[in-house]
Amino acid sequence: MARARMREVGITTGELPTGRLNAITDVAGVKVGHTTLVSGDGPLRPGAGPVRTGVTVILPHGGNLFREKAPAAVQTINGFGKPTGFEQVRELGNIETPIALTSTLNVGRVFDALVDYAISQSPEIGIRTTSVNPLVGETNDSHLNDIQGRHVTTAHVLAAIASAAEGAVAEGCVGAGTGTVCYGWKGGIGTASRIGRTGYTVGALVQSNFGASRDLCVGPTPVGRHIEPPVTAPADRGSIMIVLATDAPCDARQLHRLCGRVSAGLARTGSLYGHGSGDFAVAFSTAYRITHEAPDVAAMRPAIVREESMDDLFRAVVEATEEAVLNSLFTAETTVGRDDHVRYALPVDDVLALVRRYAG
Amino acid sequence: MARARMREVGITTGELPTGRLNAITDVAGVKVGHTTLVSGDGPLRPGAGPVRTGVTVILPHGGNLFREKAPAAVQTINGFGKPTGFEQVRELGNIETPIALTSTLNVGRVFDALVDYAISQSPEIGIRTTSVNPLVGETNDSHLNDIQGRHVTTAHVLAAIASAAEGAVAEGCVGAGTGTVCYGWKGGIGTASRIGRTGYTVGALVQSNFGASRDLCVGPTPVGRHIEPPVTAPADRGSIMIVLATDAPCDARQLHRLCGRVSAGLARTGSLYGHGSGDFAVAFSTAYRITHEAPDVAAMRPAIVREESMDDLFRAVVEATEEAVLNSLFTAETTVGRDDHVRYALPVDDVLALVRRYAG
Amino acid sequence: MARARMREVGITTGELPTGRLNAITDVAGVKVGHTTLVSGDGPLRPGAGPVRTGVTVILPHGGNLFREKAPAAVQTINGFGKPTGFEQVRELGNIETPIALTSTLNVGRVFDALVDYAISQSPEIGIRTTSVNPLVGETNDSHLNDIQGRHVTTAHVLAAIASAAEGAVAEGCVGAGTGTVCYGWKGGIGTASRIGRTGYTVGALVQSNFGASRDLCVGPTPVGRHIEPPVTAPADRGSIMIVLATDAPCDARQLHRLCGRVSAGLARTGSLYGHGSGDFAVAFSTAYRITHEAPDVAAMRPAIVREESMDDLFRAVVEATEEAVLNSLFTAETTVGRDDHVRYALPVDDVLALVRRYAG
Amino acid sequence: MARARMREVGITTGELPTGRLNAITDVAGVKVGHTTLVSGDGPLRPGAGPVRTGVTVILPHGGNLFREKAPAAVQTINGFGKPTGFEQVRELGNIETPIALTSTLNVGRVFDALVDYAISQSPEIGIRTTSVNPLVGETNDSHLNDIQGRHVTTAHVLAAIASAAEGAVAEGCVGAGTGTVCYGWKGGIGTASRIGRTGYTVGALVQSNFGASRDLCVGPTPVGRHIEPPVTAPADRGSIMIVLATDAPCDARQLHRLCGRVSAGLARTGSLYGHGSGDFAVAFSTAYRITHEAPDVAAMRPAIVREESMDDLFRAVVEATEEAVLNSLFTAETTVGRDDHVRYALPVDDVLALVRRYAG
Repeated sequence: MARARMREVGITTGELPTGRLNAITDVAGVKVGHTTLVSGDGPLRPGAGPVRTGVTVILPHGGNLFREKAPAAVQTINGFGKPTGFEQVRELGNIETPIALTSTLNVGRVFDALVDYAISQSPEIGIRTTSVNPLVGETNDSHLNDIQGRHVTTAHVLAAIASAAEGAVAEGCVGAGTGTVCYGWKGGIGTASRIGRTGYTVGALVQSNFGASRDLCVGPTPVGRHIEPPVTAPADRGSIMIVLATDAPCDARQLHRLCGRVSAGLARTGSLYGHGSGDFAVAFSTAYRITHEAPDVAAMRPAIVREESMDDLFRAVVEATEEAVLNSLFTAETTVGRDDHVRYALPVDDVLALVRRYAG
Repeated sequence: MARARMREVGITTGELPTGRLNAITDVAGVKVGHTTLVSGDGPLRPGAGPVRTGVTVILPHGGNLFREKAPAAVQTINGFGKPTGFEQVRELGNIETPIALTSTLNVGRVFDALVDYAISQSPEIGIRTTSVNPLVGETNDSHLNDIQGRHVTTAHVLAAIASAAEGAVAEGCVGAGTGTVCYGWKGGIGTASRIGRTGYTVGALVQSNFGASRDLCVGPTPVGRHIEPPVTAPADRGSIMIVLATDAPCDARQLHRLCGRVSAGLARTGSLYGHGSGDFAVAFSTAYRITHEAPDVAAMRPAIVREESMDDLFRAVVEATEEAVLNSLFTAETTVGRDDHVRYALPVDDVLALVRRYAG
Repeated sequence: MARARMREVGITTGELPTGRLNAITDVAGVKVGHTTLVSGDGPLRPGAGPVRTGVTVILPHGGNLFREKAPAAVQTINGFGKPTGFEQVRELGNIETPIALTSTLNVGRVFDALVDYAISQSPEIGIRTTSVNPLVGETNDSHLNDIQGRHVTTAHVLAAIASAAEGAVAEGCVGAGTGTVCYGWKGGIGTASRIGRTGYTVGALVQSNFGASRDLCVGPTPVGRHIEPPVTAPADRGSIMIVLATDAPCDARQLHRLCGRVSAGLARTGSLYGHGSGDFAVAFSTAYRITHEAPDVAAMRPAIVREESMDDLFRAVVEATEEAVLNSLFTAETTVGRDDHVRYALPVDDVLALVRRYAG
Repeated sequence: MARARMREVGITTGELPTGRLNAITDVAGVKVGHTTLVSGDGPLRPGAGPVRTGVTVILPHGGNLFREKAPAAVQTINGFGKPTGFEQVRELGNIETPIALTSTLNVGRVFDALVDYAISQSPEIGIRTTSVNPLVGETNDSHLNDIQGRHVTTAHVLAAIASAAEGAVAEGCVGAGTGTVCYGWKGGIGTASRIGRTGYTVGALVQSNFGASRDLCVGPTPVGRHIEPPVTAPADRGSIMIVLATDAPCDARQLHRLCGRVSAGLARTGSLYGHGSGDFAVAFSTAYRITHEAPDVAAMRPAIVREESMDDLFRAVVEATEEAVLNSLFTAETTVGRDDHVRYALPVDDVLALVRRYAG
């Protein structure tokens, strides 16, 4: 039985209203899919298991992403990480594959799988037109998972894409969050959304794998000062990938500004972007699409939000990011991984009691 | 009588110990000076007053900065601002003038004053050697001050430099903080420091002029949700300049990493780096100096901290930045400015009561 | 009598057609103005002269730039320089003052003058709305000029703006180019333009003050290998500012891509972006304007060129930049400056003979 | 029989002396290895062939790169490309795997192979320490090669590493250059080196796959205006990867400055960094190594070159880059690829005659 999300428990952070599902899929058309891999127990046998990993994919729309790209931007908060595709997003301001999140050493294989997917949809790639830019993010799930094994295959990635859907998003120990650790507790996939005063929606989805337990905050409550995990965490070597979606018509520069507020959302949960934490944001807009190699010179005429209205979107980014991280903690379940390493689920009752105490 | 700093009131944020003075001047050799300009009352007469402004200077050392530069880095958190000198710091990794903070439209005149100062120390500038790169930061104090008047003159800047000293730093409504507004309250200059576990000191000094009142947090206490200023603030158009000093031997790339944690310190106080807020960080190290145009090819051999030890410095940056902002609020006094605009001092008793209530 | 431009002498570089004037003013609406300051002779008396300097202003349009901003971008090729305004252009993608070019140490005073100008047009600045972001570029004219004197005053800047006009642009020893040195010869202001195959115009204007004489190329002719200036140049401490204008509808990201091709244009003339050379590009589009603080959320709907058509603009940038540099050399006249320093005009007859020889 | 390098034919570009081999391996300790894949003929059968591709690896030293990293930097000239590893190099200033160059869609598989290699040398990766950051560059060889087939396997990458050696470097149609096209002619791998006046060596190695034929320059000779390939090239969709090595003791910031001069070297050959060309530079120094996770706080004390001496290194970068590109053209042989596409070898006799004519 799935654990409850933070709001279901009775805790609220932020002030803006959420979307209907409080998920990245509140941005119309966005799809999310997971493949979760759990097998084996006991001692690590590198290459064989135990396996606690997976892949999560986010699709800006359900069409052909190579032929109809989404405007996009990226930002590196702390660059100790191995994402792919960032250079081209910076130059051209768009994404042309699903965004795939996975385990660090698995990035190459997931890149390769996205190539397979793109070719299956657009067989002209690399023959009659340009090649394709796979966008892969990762965090290091090696505390629980046989990371050297790189267990996510092309079939797993294609299955995640095939299963991707609008609607409610599975959170916690699923997909790329299966083996991750956050603030010393079991982390995972989390999502949230906000509707700004201008009516636009911002959704966030995170793969949480960062932080020292003593730093954890839930809203104004310094949880980490009072509640420690039963097992000591090793040095903070985690990371976080944050994906933002919005239906606000932003160009790439403006989407980059949205990425710039992710760091405030992370800091609200206690992060200081540790040395070993590869923290990366990706943002895309669903408000318009960029067709691949259209013949006309000046076909694009997107509506672009006024710069002055961006504060509203900024607040939505901060709140959605914060709550997505917290949702990943509230929904993730205690997991036993390689070498019997355990990462415990955040003890919700204790947290709730503490939050109530601090609420005065 | 000066208002008390946050710790003097009995409130503590963060976990690392402070330096002796809890100020940027805990980094040995660093000097700070202010010139404060207050004159006139009543209706704004653009160019004439009322004047509520000034200039604050930070010197990495007391010697000739042009001939013995400090390793340095800059980072732009939100670029809606007008600092000077950033391009050269990015390229060469050093600063060669005092860092001067002032009112936005006054940047040109303060740049000019730093040229005067540099020439007075190094008459060879622009004759027998290169020119000099003045580093000026600013925030917009127009709510209280006749900003169009640009009342900070060369004499004021030279006086601030002449008065710059080690030791305790005046805070609140002094120098560049005379007319600033922070979270709807009177802001100003604030400073703080931390000593990391590796024994290195990090100091921060801020010119605080940003934020919406409802967002203010003092440590875990959401002050802004409970205590509103008596007057409504206009739209958030402020900014913040943050100067970091450390005695840790960092190269420019590592100092840039320190700058990257300022955003977490700001977020702890409630910031989301608003659209209209020009938020900029400057960091320098006092551990070694870079001589101007030395004849030898490979004279530099600085000790450089191990990358793994930077988490300790990062925490120091976050905590010092947070507390410097809060100190600016605790020490600033109610100020009446142009057009009888008032910005009230943060009501310390109310805040203290709230903090105690939230501390459970 | 003015010296002839390169094409008037009979030398052509590049392959695209020029605009009618072969100047940045071929982009409709763009205005250029200069104030040229020449006085005194003989030994340098710092602060008094001799004076060989000035200011050049480029206006994207003749209206109120603060209220109707131009989309813009900047790029730093080598950051050893002191431009102002870059951070805000990067964040917001627009310029809101004339672009002013001047002598390095004069940047503060010219910044201040642009504030005066902006306030004179828009008295609401810093009172009922935000402040303004002056964009100033510079190169170091200290070999000929009393740079410490900072002789360009507010009146000079306002005069340059008042005199700014569409039509033919004065080149060589005018405005900000009065005292500059390029490839060991007298440099100065130069301009050129190209019309791409898509019908859009790109114009470039440079303040040339860089390069070692042996590196100079005129098209395919390695002039510097054969023709040396009569006097030895000191170490390359120059710089170059390059301003690009286009009527192509580009957003800020695309304008940044245009800036990225300036380096190829410079390299064609022989540059390798020396350590001491502050090389900076600014680009703006006249195709649409961005109104200041409009109330509507999504008013902008600019046509944006297709990415695939940018190669055409890139070639125009490269060729216009190259020819603008060469025009600055062809039109600048022998100048005697401080301490009787002389920088000779490029000997056009010798160059022409050499170009013909190399043309086989 | 191998085709002659440019200097062997009698053409010289630049003015600095080359190293002994005029190759990146003139930087002591640097190793280069290739695996070249050529099979099949006739019509493209996607996934099956014909195969004209490969992988080239560059090792900063022959030891364990993960445990002893090389200081490094990257720069993106035009970001239309899919390299991996750039974010971490920017953050940490080092590389910890061989640099591998390959075909665009093959990047994922080569990333995966570098993980295998790193684990084989350092089995602690992802178990008792951090993961590893594979550095892969690519260009698109789809005009001649079955790019969808991704024919470079882990075994091929490991073979290239195993065969990597100091000494002379195979050029032209080898390794990652097997199927590339440059200025409409057959491109490939090229290398060159320069010794600066300060005694330091700079080496460059390129995978050339860019440019329009009419733009090609050999030194000052505009070859492309006179000599066209027998077959028309499609639109410029190529790219170039440039790897720089030096024994000069540079920190990451200074290595980034070296990368910044690659664009001048490319421009000398005629490049304007076309829209579709992913142009990326990587630079590393062999002067010192960075040990992985050393326990001491301040163990690093590298000698760092004086900034003023960098002009010498800049010239070496420009000349080595230029000649590496030209060597790739001079050494590559006519290649028939998929769908009987042909890319012809640069006709050396014609070029030599033209160069002599232009030399007057």
